[in-house]
Amino acid sequence: MTARISVVLVSPRNPLNIGAAARAMSNFGFADLRLVNPYDVAFREAKSAVKSEYILEQARVFESVAEAVGDCTLVIGGTSVGHRDLHLPLYRLEAAGQIVRESGNAAILFGSEKFGLSNEDMSHCHWLYRIPAREEHGSMNLGQAVAITLYELIRDAKAETQRFDPVPRAEAADFERITGLLYNLLEDSGYIQERMAEPAEIRLRNLVNRLGIPASDAKTWQGILRQIQWKINQQKGA
Amino acid sequence: MTARISVVLVSPRNPLNIGAAARAMSNFGFADLRLVNPYDVAFREAKSAVKSEYILEQARVFESVAEAVGDCTLVIGGTSVGHRDLHLPLYRLEAAGQIVRESGNAAILFGSEKFGLSNEDMSHCHWLYRIPAREEHGSMNLGQAVAITLYELIRDAKAETQRFDPVPRAEAADFERITGLLYNLLEDSGYIQERMAEPAEIRLRNLVNRLGIPASDAKTWQGILRQIQWKINQQKGA
Repeated sequence: MTARISVVLVSPRNPLNIGAAARAMSNFGFADLRLVNPYDVAFREAKSAVKSEYILEQARVFESVAEAVGDCTLVIGGTSVGHRDLHLPLYRLEAAGQIVRESGNAAILFGSEKFGLSNEDMSHCHWLYRIPAREEHGSMNLGQAVAITLYELIRDAKAETQRFDPVPRAEAADFERITGLLYNLLEDSGYIQERMAEPAEIRLRNLVNRLGIPASDAKTWQGILRQIQWKINQQKGA
Repeated sequence: MTARISVVLVSPRNPLNIGAAARAMSNFGFADLRLVNPYDVAFREAKSAVKSEYILEQARVFESVAEAVGDCTLVIGGTSVGHRDLHLPLYRLEAAGQIVRESGNAAILFGSEKFGLSNEDMSHCHWLYRIPAREEHGSMNLGQAVAITLYELIRDAKAETQRFDPVPRAEAADFERITGLLYNLLEDSGYIQERMAEPAEIRLRNLVNRLGIPASDAKTWQGILRQIQWKINQQKGA
């Protein structure tokens, strides 16, 4: 991503949300925070946010959306409203992220906690986007909306396919040793009756094979079984 | 997604974070919230969260992680720590989301605000995942971490390619009419000198063509130019 992306909070009222926005920006490597008409007390209190002071210290305050986005070539707004008559294209966040990544300097507008973006705010936007929340409860917390939006921007589609190699399975000989140890243990402890011996051994081998014991754990399991066998033998002798 | 996905908050301390987790769950359509050893006051206060009461009312409290995840076939934990010796596979969220979507009943564990998941908590996990925040500031706000994780689960990769058709452009005849109106206006207002008339018309046509006027706005622009021309003519007559 080569574009400069500015987070613009329009009329934020809650210092916790301003702080949360700054924290998410720091988490995901964004630095340009702009505030339009913030509630002064909220902005001052927000400056105490952990580890994001540098973002809040550098944040610039503007009196209008027009001034805040003046140097941006793409201006978009987040909205939770799918049904309002918007007169603007409305993208889902997944698509919005792609477009913003390919854009020049972009401003992303977030409305106030209570009212979202006004029609006047939106008239400065080239298009709007929507985080795909449920229609029945589309209104999101401001700090969470900023965090999710920035996550989508830094998200790496190639990382989806990351898979760890399955843990290497122990060799058949280990499985056989473990089956043998367990068989003796179960015979000594009365779980296996002598007349059932042969089918019992087959069932036990299947049971142990289904465990999928990792190669690196094979010796440990054999040690465990031998120790229990030792204890049983010792008690028999006592 | 057919799997039941449970959000498990381990030792949460801040009611705002519990409320924020519940709100994000409601936004994205998840209902099963479980708390392990929450700070009691925090849980009670959190129950006042807007529109997510039903999730907090139904939330179940457990005394241990083992009890909380007892009926889950996949247990994973969120961590901000990339470097700790984890003894467990560590996925990026993008990959974790894919695996969870394909899984049976899954529990996603989130640690306390201050300490994250303990080694004991993690020993109940089949693997861990990490939201791809910057290494220099990987520690995320709990409510934001829950929101981003759930967003990844409901995210629709197919939606990435959504594009709106470009706005239909006005016809050449409209561009020509607008160029003509503007030409007269600029002549009357002294912007175009008579001796430069021909190159000026060509330059003006190019200028207007680059505007990309939408078909639906062509009549409005002609009206605007005619009105200004009318005003100038009227003043000339006066």
